[in-house]
Amino acid sequence: MKKVKVYIATSLDGWIADKEGKIEWLTGFPNPEGTDYGYSEFLATIDTTLIGNSTYKDILILSEEFPYPDKTNYVFTRNPSLQDTKYVQFVHTPAAEFVRELKQGAGADIWLVGGGLLNGSLLEAGLIDEMIIHVMPVILGDGIPLFGGVNVNIAFELLRHKVYSSGVLELHYKKIGQQV
Amino acid sequence: MKKVKVYIATSLDGWIADKEGKIEWLTGFPNPEGTDYGYSEFLATIDTTLIGNSTYKDILILSEEFPYPDKTNYVFTRNPSLQDTKYVQFVHTPAAEFVRELKQGAGADIWLVGGGLLNGSLLEAGLIDEMIIHVMPVILGDGIPLFGGVNVNIAFELLRHKVYSSGVLELHYKKIGQQV
Repeated sequence: MKKVKVYIATSLDGWIADKEGKIEWLTGFPNPEGTDYGYSEFLATIDTTLIGNSTYKDILILSEEFPYPDKTNYVFTRNPSLQDTKYVQFVHTPAAEFVRELKQGAGADIWLVGGGLLNGSLLEAGLIDEMIIHVMPVILGDGIPLFGGVNVNIAFELLRHKVYSSGVLELHYKKIGQQV
Repeated sequence: MKKVKVYIATSLDGWIADKEGKIEWLTGFPNPEGTDYGYSEFLATIDTTLIGNSTYKDILILSEEFPYPDKTNYVFTRNPSLQDTKYVQFVHTPAAEFVRELKQGAGADIWLVGGGLLNGSLLEAGLIDEMIIHVMPVILGDGIPLFGGVNVNIAFELLRHKVYSSGVLELHYKKIGQQV
């Protein structure tokens, strides 16, 4: 079965973006070693991405070209008029239902790119298998939470961790008792 | 100069309590080794606590006896009618101003017990020197944030970290460029 994985960075107080949804605090963080924080290694384990429509719009603003051209990319939206592009297919059905079916298919794993609302709905449905979180040594005080609009109590297992010289902490969690 | 230290546990998505302010997810977390997560060692480094009035009320509910009888304990409140007790002194002046003076005094360090609003006001004023955060391998989705009501971008340095067999992660951060 295909796994759904979160791969994301958060501030050390748990925000994935500042209050205005901006990520300059993240993209501007010093990276003297030029590490990609395991990104290309991670990307090789997945063949599909799941993207909320707000995050998709942010990606189009941030990137000149769509960054995952060789993956199957699903963008979740309630707007029925959006047309598929060369790279992405729009999904108008409930995300949890769609992803539950998707996981039954063959192939590599699935990257839940985000944002918070999509993450929240899949977490609540018990569909998130692994999380690779990069905790940046920065306090924001307020912002967009990792999971939006849910209220749960789900235990994960810390599989491994890595500390970069910049103080960035890479945490790899696996869901305990995944039953989907 | 006395340092102000945060010593607190958060869920892995950054909440210090659930949406109703409850911490059963934390106090009920399995602890087969019976570790105190460095608590008594930490307590020996401080002689003063700073407590917001809501947190103080929670402490009185959770503990039969006030848990820091041998420390100097300040409780911050806007209610001028509260009377000092055997263990705590109420502070009615702005927290940042009070703590800035307190740090000039002699003695051991200061524990910023919390909660979120007091943490936020002292963070914003640049008065937090160190943070010892225990990241529990639990997702809550929503709750009370570590710092309340602020919007900042402050870099910290990861001094050291420790992983417990339960998957709890102890992170020790120091403020970069503390100038107070």
